[in-house]
Amino acid sequence: MKRVTLIGSGNVASHLATALHHASIQIVEVYSRNLENAEALAQKVQANPCNSLVELSVETDLYIIAVSDKSIAPVAAELPQGIPVTHTSGSIAMQTLERTDREIGIFYPLQTFTKEKTVDWSTIPFCIEASNEALHDQLFALAQLLSKEVYSVDSEQRAKLHLAAVFACNFSNHMYAIAAELLEENGLDLKLLHPLLLETAAKATAGDPAQLQTGPAIRKDDKVLQHQLEALSAHPNYQKIYTLISDSIQQSSDT
Amino acid sequence: MKRVTLIGSGNVASHLATALHHASIQIVEVYSRNLENAEALAQKVQANPCNSLVELSVETDLYIIAVSDKSIAPVAAELPQGIPVTHTSGSIAMQTLERTDREIGIFYPLQTFTKEKTVDWSTIPFCIEASNEALHDQLFALAQLLSKEVYSVDSEQRAKLHLAAVFACNFSNHMYAIAAELLEENGLDLKLLHPLLLETAAKATAGDPAQLQTGPAIRKDDKVLQHQLEALSAHPNYQKIYTLISDSIQQSSDT
Repeated sequence: MKRVTLIGSGNVASHLATALHHASIQIVEVYSRNLENAEALAQKVQANPCNSLVELSVETDLYIIAVSDKSIAPVAAELPQGIPVTHTSGSIAMQTLERTDREIGIFYPLQTFTKEKTVDWSTIPFCIEASNEALHDQLFALAQLLSKEVYSVDSEQRAKLHLAAVFACNFSNHMYAIAAELLEENGLDLKLLHPLLLETAAKATAGDPAQLQTGPAIRKDDKVLQHQLEALSAHPNYQKIYTLISDSIQQSSDT
Repeated sequence: MKRVTLIGSGNVASHLATALHHASIQIVEVYSRNLENAEALAQKVQANPCNSLVELSVETDLYIIAVSDKSIAPVAAELPQGIPVTHTSGSIAMQTLERTDREIGIFYPLQTFTKEKTVDWSTIPFCIEASNEALHDQLFALAQLLSKEVYSVDSEQRAKLHLAAVFACNFSNHMYAIAAELLEENGLDLKLLHPLLLETAAKATAGDPAQLQTGPAIRKDDKVLQHQLEALSAHPNYQKIYTLISDSIQQSSDT
């Protein structure tokens, strides 16, 4: 594959278009409902801007849909026929793209992107899936231009991956948010926990998190557990979370 | 303060003794119940080893107790009189050290230490507390030899800090462990989530985690929430955690 069309102009689309452009892939067009957004990104990657799905050029090897999850199906339905279509989402099944006139696939980079922040693509895991082996291999090779970590992952596995990411990332972030709230109430700043928080994440990527568990629950320090539960009396909801996760930590260590 | 005695030879004691030694503080003695452990660390920091608390030299400016939480009280009770005593724990009140014949304080570095891994002390927050202002200022100055981030934190605040750390670190780690378990069941590896997990933590230290929340709960994507809950049917306990945290994320965003 030498020519790619990007559908979308948000964080994923921007970072992906730029990375593919730098990898000497021709970005044919950038589509956005908003022409200005399409133009801004298109200019960066020497592509043509477009704000009409049905008018997209078919002089391309691949459409990559990088829009919000709920827009993937309606966008995919309108694309010109005959060109392979992929999306970049962790949670939408490949079959969402299905139409008798084309091949379909998944081109999913497993990272969260921030607009202004540069990305080290070489370490970002890519999950590849396709409706046939030839397209699979082409998408796999395309991803390998960007990253050393490319995997074949079917839609069922991808759903499990997304579920795991909810725990590892979304729920962890909520734990950080609760910590920040508790600190703020006591005139303290989450900044105090930054090194500990970063080191906890770093350790978990260097070993098995279950083996690295620390804290009063795993130590079965009932005195501290009771005391901390009482300290949360103003937050009945956080008490429930505290009890449930502490119990879960103890159950994991028992098995 | 020029001369310090380290009580303990575990991770915290080792890293702290080494850092103070490098900062040109004389380590007078290293105590461990196990003489070989005392000798091993003492040799590294040009100190004398000792395995008898009552025989510790009083030719020192400070005892720093860096042992397990449950050993702090019995160890502190046996120390020779007249020398200021501190401990390095996040969860034990300063009053645990109280005795009429001495000043007491807290010298608490907020980081998790691994035996073989070098530590950048300059960014580790230190929490300082003392039974009088003079000792407070001396401990504060001692911590400043190691770190740019030194804070006065009383025992009540320290308890809240410890509680917040349980959420931000211990509970996050359990979220990683659950993710790893779910992935393993489906022939996948937590490795796939490493970059996402590290970036989530890095983002939380650069902004307000509550504002950075992503995922199906904050989007109120009921279809995904329902689907993921069903995917956890083999783990009723994780279903409960999933529901409770998702609800908490939604409640936080409503307020």
